Amino acid sequence: MTDQIMKPSSLSKPLCGIVPPMVTPLRDRDTLDGPSLERLIEHILAGGVSGLFILGTTGEGPSLSYRLRKEFIEHTCRQVRGRVPVLVGITDTAFVESVNVARWSADAGAEAVVLAPPYYLPEGQPELQEYLDHLVPELPLPLFLYNMPALTKVSFELETIRRAMDNPRIIGLKDSSGNMTYFHRAAGLLKHRPDWSLLMGPEELLADAVFAGGHGGVNGGANVFPRLYVDLFLAAKAGNTARVRELHARVMRISDNLYRIGRHPSAIIKGIKCALSLLGVCDDFMAEPFHRFREPERAKVRELLKELNLQAS
Amino acid sequence: MTDQIMKPSSLSKPLCGIVPPMVTPLRDRDTLDGPSLERLIEHILAGGVSGLFILGTTGEGPSLSYRLRKEFIEHTCRQVRGRVPVLVGITDTAFVESVNVARWSADAGAEAVVLAPPYYLPEGQPELQEYLDHLVPELPLPLFLYNMPALTKVSFELETIRRAMDNPRIIGLKDSSGNMTYFHRAAGLLKHRPDWSLLMGPEELLADAVFAGGHGGVNGGANVFPRLYVDLFLAAKAGNTARVRELHARVMRISDNLYRIGRHPSAIIKGIKCALSLLGVCDDFMAEPFHRFREPERAKVRELLKELNLQAS
Amino acid sequence: MTDQIMKPSSLSKPLCGIVPPMVTPLRDRDTLDGPSLERLIEHILAGGVSGLFILGTTGEGPSLSYRLRKEFIEHTCRQVRGRVPVLVGITDTAFVESVNVARWSADAGAEAVVLAPPYYLPEGQPELQEYLDHLVPELPLPLFLYNMPALTKVSFELETIRRAMDNPRIIGLKDSSGNMTYFHRAAGLLKHRPDWSLLMGPEELLADAVFAGGHGGVNGGANVFPRLYVDLFLAAKAGNTARVRELHARVMRISDNLYRIGRHPSAIIKGIKCALSLLGVCDDFMAEPFHRFREPERAKVRELLKELNLQAS
Amino acid sequence: MTDQIMKPSSLSKPLCGIVPPMVTPLRDRDTLDGPSLERLIEHILAGGVSGLFILGTTGEGPSLSYRLRKEFIEHTCRQVRGRVPVLVGITDTAFVESVNVARWSADAGAEAVVLAPPYYLPEGQPELQEYLDHLVPELPLPLFLYNMPALTKVSFELETIRRAMDNPRIIGLKDSSGNMTYFHRAAGLLKHRPDWSLLMGPEELLADAVFAGGHGGVNGGANVFPRLYVDLFLAAKAGNTARVRELHARVMRISDNLYRIGRHPSAIIKGIKCALSLLGVCDDFMAEPFHRFREPERAKVRELLKELNLQAS
Repeated sequence: MTDQIMKPSSLSKPLCGIVPPMVTPLRDRDTLDGPSLERLIEHILAGGVSGLFILGTTGEGPSLSYRLRKEFIEHTCRQVRGRVPVLVGITDTAFVESVNVARWSADAGAEAVVLAPPYYLPEGQPELQEYLDHLVPELPLPLFLYNMPALTKVSFELETIRRAMDNPRIIGLKDSSGNMTYFHRAAGLLKHRPDWSLLMGPEELLADAVFAGGHGGVNGGANVFPRLYVDLFLAAKAGNTARVRELHARVMRISDNLYRIGRHPSAIIKGIKCALSLLGVCDDFMAEPFHRFREPERAKVRELLKELNLQAS
Repeated sequence: MTDQIMKPSSLSKPLCGIVPPMVTPLRDRDTLDGPSLERLIEHILAGGVSGLFILGTTGEGPSLSYRLRKEFIEHTCRQVRGRVPVLVGITDTAFVESVNVARWSADAGAEAVVLAPPYYLPEGQPELQEYLDHLVPELPLPLFLYNMPALTKVSFELETIRRAMDNPRIIGLKDSSGNMTYFHRAAGLLKHRPDWSLLMGPEELLADAVFAGGHGGVNGGANVFPRLYVDLFLAAKAGNTARVRELHARVMRISDNLYRIGRHPSAIIKGIKCALSLLGVCDDFMAEPFHRFREPERAKVRELLKELNLQAS
Repeated sequence: MTDQIMKPSSLSKPLCGIVPPMVTPLRDRDTLDGPSLERLIEHILAGGVSGLFILGTTGEGPSLSYRLRKEFIEHTCRQVRGRVPVLVGITDTAFVESVNVARWSADAGAEAVVLAPPYYLPEGQPELQEYLDHLVPELPLPLFLYNMPALTKVSFELETIRRAMDNPRIIGLKDSSGNMTYFHRAAGLLKHRPDWSLLMGPEELLADAVFAGGHGGVNGGANVFPRLYVDLFLAAKAGNTARVRELHARVMRISDNLYRIGRHPSAIIKGIKCALSLLGVCDDFMAEPFHRFREPERAKVRELLKELNLQAS
Repeated sequence: MTDQIMKPSSLSKPLCGIVPPMVTPLRDRDTLDGPSLERLIEHILAGGVSGLFILGTTGEGPSLSYRLRKEFIEHTCRQVRGRVPVLVGITDTAFVESVNVARWSADAGAEAVVLAPPYYLPEGQPELQEYLDHLVPELPLPLFLYNMPALTKVSFELETIRRAMDNPRIIGLKDSSGNMTYFHRAAGLLKHRPDWSLLMGPEELLADAVFAGGHGGVNGGANVFPRLYVDLFLAAKAGNTARVRELHARVMRISDNLYRIGRHPSAIIKGIKCALSLLGVCDDFMAEPFHRFREPERAKVRELLKELNLQAS
């Protein structure tokens, strides 16, 4: 069971388990921090995760130059060496650039790509459907949809999901709306595609997602504490309510503290990178227009890590 | 006077008049339509405009590949031959890509670049200010700010504008918020920078903007009817209220009809491209994820153009 | 167990189970339909519910005249005869009117009152806290908070909830935000008040709410199918995952169909009243500015009821 | 001219000029401050205004008990003695209560009533139209529509305005959306009803509104400085651009300072009441859930008043 969760040999069945949205270790605005990246990958894989999602929101994908994105995809895939599937974010306002990133991903050995709606001028659902119809044939890899309306302004509405299920090259949905009713409705569509993966973004809802029939989570905190999220997933999957309650409480403690130190929406990423920096995994440099926590916030993260470790032991 | 409005030799004084946000004539998803572009530029310049703004919202900038953007900048500047200043949109979620587009613009002979806030993960105002502090020194051209909160989620708040005025490389603001109170407040800041340009996006507010102390408009309809918007600007500038009323009524007729044929926010661009296509200036191909009007909508645009011409004669 | 759920003798411990937000049977705009009200109450109580919440959103409380609200409170309490606690919505933009409705409620024998934030001009959280400090001493009954930001524009933020817990006269929270992360955070505060009740509004999230540590639901569908929601609650409480899955699927079928027949936010209430009318419980007259479904929508509800009954037997 | 602006003998032609949305002087939560009310009315009428609008947003109408609203209407009408028309806000979520307030208004001698859409559960435009169809015949006074989407969530869309113009008992629109394009569109409809009044809410847009064909303003600042707003209106009406610029700058100074001292949307009302209190006109008590400025804010208002007076002399 654990084996199957950690290393799905392909995506012909749902991707089950935790697929961390990996942060991007940077040395400066346009320089990858290679050694940190390698440490980070090993840190995460050691936690028993089922895949890696790179260049998503937590990965600061849209903030990175295309050159850097290409280098990052290649370096990641090289380091992972097929131990878990690598999923690559190709969300873009420009159709052609999405295709380019998908090609680099295929060349580097990634297993799938992940796409949120084009996010500048909002499109209607019929336009979004036609866009998928045009884009998917250009992609050398299967596609996960990524619902993230707070950032893209446009949702993948359920009718659009239902229609996308008719396309065998579209193989799953990551829902980061935080709207649990939407997630239940999406789960209700799974009967049409037994191979489709339904993954939850916000980690506060990971257990709910599994109870609802979802397959796992793409949870930012799994950059720092991969084993915790894998354990929570396994407990929920096994219906072990008492264990779920205990692990979920730890996840909520992280969420209530680590992600709410800064005031802006980027605080989650800053908190994760700061914690990784304190753990010696990678630096907390943030791509423009964001900036790492300063010392007062860093001190709070240090304190929190201390508390969490004590309670984890 | 007219002369000065049409051909400011530099931007050491405010850019006065109409600076159309030019549409991008396309043959297909990633191919520029060169002959159409040349016709379109001549069509617009013949109307007496004071500049051209390319790769903005109306120009579908974010939907175009970087390769195409570069070709488009070069082709435009070559065709314009310095007759009016060319302003190029460099808005991007990736700092490095904004700098790249700015460099191509400088190399091609553009006069300034135009930037809305990075529009994926929303940043706070202090982050936005620091971002400007870091970006401006990397830009080979002076910068216009572009306030477009409906699409970027983040405004250039007035405190940020005030602070940006301390940087002599930032030379103006295009406000497309549609919030006339904001525009009045921005106009109240002009005393700090007599060389700063304050331009209005929505054409329905062009006359109000001039009365409020603004310098002109970046109005989509000026792609189709450049002379009308220039005339309205001149009438407002001259305080000719009766003439303003008459021309403003024509602008409202365009806005009430041409821009409201489709239901989605992209309807304005579709309407403009459709009208240009009917006038034989350029095709109405739209970059993904958008699509040209179909025949029923096209018929309405045809009808509208007929009415407007009759009333114009 | 069932006994305790159905008839809590007081609110010194959490109110557990289903507390339907009862619709208001009307003969016309300002006339209560007494016989229907009595039938409706008996229909609901027969389902094993734990309380009744009247004059909430589903009860069209804000649309009713104060005279009618008073009559409705009295008639309801008379009919219920203490079999379950009656909770009365007192949400109002005017402090004094909230107090008046609370007094009528106490006089009629209701057990508690329920309050969402004043919903015209939005107040800040400190103002909301001070408002509670001033209001609660004027209320003759204990108070439930009602979080409904989609309609009131203002949330009871978690800091405000935490602070409200210091007031023993505030005894619970009904959360209709649909934000499951908020609900988890609210559940995390229950350790400070073991007697506090945490109830879920949207029925799609009832099972999640119970897993999260909530005490039950205030679910509109329980007007029509009270037993279904009570059974789902009991199954979730007992950790009977298979049974939860089956009953939750039925709830989703109601939600996906009955509540989405109309296009407007009032469609849920219209659907519930229409179903009750088809079941012969009460007429579907809606208070201004809303109107009952017309025949095409009614036909769909009829069809749905037929399907649900077949599958229920 | 001035005469006609100040005392329209009826509303068979548009109401031109300034109609201040009067604040409600209170002694405590539910007690009118009669002497202050009388002083306030005389203070405002001395400024040459064309009417008084009571129980609107600035008047904290929705926060007041119905008993107090009735007393306030009667006291106001008695004090005004027909010198200007009194308009009374009847916006309510309950149809019957709106009718009641309208009847008290007619009995007291008010000239018209003012209605924003019911603001709890949002209605669609067809529902809003039907609501007007049902409500207007019940009203003993003619009706102004009040567009205030930031607070009511629902706009009077232009199609609804156009349709309302077919009802001769609906006689005008106060637009507080701050959306100048909407206002231009509304002005474009005036040709259908030469007797209809179109009034601007936000004072920052008063001059724009008059240029656009509007008839005047319902501007909060006119509680404190009635003459200033009347003068600005007259200058705009006369097309005296230089004078408009000067007076508009003073209005902007008030807006930029007085209304932005507090952080919440209620800051405008708090600022106005604080200024009136410093001028000795009335106390600054605010109805729940709001509270007067404390000493630091009050000191800023005091300072501002000093500056404004110096510059006014």
